[in-house]
Amino acid sequence: MTFQKKLQSVQRKHRSLLCIGLDTDRRLLPAHFPRTADGVVAFNRAIIEATSDLACGYKLNLAFYEALGRDGWRVMDETLRLIPRSLVTIGDGKRGDICNTAEQYAQALYNELGFDAVTVHPYMGFDSVEPFIRDASRCAFVLALTSNEGSKDFQRLTLGGKPLYEKVIHTVTKWNTKKNIGLVVGATHPDELEPIRALAPTMPLLIPGIGKQGGDLKAAVRYGCDKKGEFALINAGRSILYASSARNFARAARKEATRLRSHMQRYQEQFFG
Amino acid sequence: MTFQKKLQSVQRKHRSLLCIGLDTDRRLLPAHFPRTADGVVAFNRAIIEATSDLACGYKLNLAFYEALGRDGWRVMDETLRLIPRSLVTIGDGKRGDICNTAEQYAQALYNELGFDAVTVHPYMGFDSVEPFIRDASRCAFVLALTSNEGSKDFQRLTLGGKPLYEKVIHTVTKWNTKKNIGLVVGATHPDELEPIRALAPTMPLLIPGIGKQGGDLKAAVRYGCDKKGEFALINAGRSILYASSARNFARAARKEATRLRSHMQRYQEQFFG
Repeated sequence: MTFQKKLQSVQRKHRSLLCIGLDTDRRLLPAHFPRTADGVVAFNRAIIEATSDLACGYKLNLAFYEALGRDGWRVMDETLRLIPRSLVTIGDGKRGDICNTAEQYAQALYNELGFDAVTVHPYMGFDSVEPFIRDASRCAFVLALTSNEGSKDFQRLTLGGKPLYEKVIHTVTKWNTKKNIGLVVGATHPDELEPIRALAPTMPLLIPGIGKQGGDLKAAVRYGCDKKGEFALINAGRSILYASSARNFARAARKEATRLRSHMQRYQEQFFG
Repeated sequence: MTFQKKLQSVQRKHRSLLCIGLDTDRRLLPAHFPRTADGVVAFNRAIIEATSDLACGYKLNLAFYEALGRDGWRVMDETLRLIPRSLVTIGDGKRGDICNTAEQYAQALYNELGFDAVTVHPYMGFDSVEPFIRDASRCAFVLALTSNEGSKDFQRLTLGGKPLYEKVIHTVTKWNTKKNIGLVVGATHPDELEPIRALAPTMPLLIPGIGKQGGDLKAAVRYGCDKKGEFALINAGRSILYASSARNFARAARKEATRLRSHMQRYQEQFFG
């Protein structure tokens, strides 16, 4: 099955654009969890069990697992096995290297760990992305306009009157012969979402920055979706994972995920219904 | 000790600009090694023992270790412990993410593994690099002009008549308040090395692309070094690691490392002597 098909299928089945960022920081675990690798797995299990029917996918930021040292890869592997297969999984590692190296990353993320999708930096160009898009069942989300302050430093530089990130989008649409490239676009830039969606009308957009980062959920749905009101993956991490630090954290996480999905559904109804 | 001081010290002591890329691919190990995680450690040990007096540092490309799956981090950790402390170690992971995530990568690479330096993508701007340059004993090598074909796709785009990579260099020199930023510049672009060095006269330059990639060693020394003929880290990986696939591979690796160092010394003598 192609990545696009899998995404569409789970978004329809779960009526959800919500992607949950499992960026588990062991220092922030509820007090009754051990601050160990196994504590992270147990916490992730509880979050996944409490939320998997509400989400279309999970995004694991690799940094939080690598910070566990030797155990990090095992924790990621065990976490991935807990996620129902019908959901999409994104290895958010923002990789980017020369071709023979990118092949090794693809081996690690797609074959060893089994992610459906990854995030990649555009700076090194086509041959750094190509190993991630050889197989139409996998998807590479290329960084376009990120949610952070530093996005102004280079992404907004203008070339011939247009920002660099538009040039990136324009170029990667040409690479998208297998229809398995997506874009990362922060919800912290609501005014730019509409023109970005116009440049890439059918690509999946991975949209971080709602929740803790304060991005605009309404704009993320309205302009992040394609014409059918689909193919936006709106990511929330910390606001769900750490909704409560008490024993009822999983219920609190479910409540926050439900709230976010409901808002998204309401906006889908309003703009695409 | 600052990173710059450590680099200068080992480059003088070993009279070497050679950085060895320990990008060990288990499929390419000599036939008498098992193609396992432990086989990679044993191979790396032999290479390090055969070459550490000839090099100023080792660069480990993280992709090759991540491709080992769960064992990858342990293999990297064990490999790092085999490298004499006086040499610099570079974790070539080309990371780049928002601040709270970059902090996790810094934790993983600097504290868990103990690398002296890392490589980072510039695309996400200052807050994605800052966690890697908080401590002057560590160094972040920012990608400027990479050695691969894809470097033309974005790095060479022109803004106000100048290529994007020059803008990157110009910007990161302003971030370099602790003197612990370096640049990655491929040896496959010999004509651009001189103007790049002029833009960043005192930064360490990490120069991949000689050896298998066919870059220009003479230009790498002549224009990659600072005014004293130092602070170029010229990386060779595959041409040393796989100089022979026979039982004498370590001797062949030493011979190739010696040859490269001698050429570098000759050019240092010629241009800075």
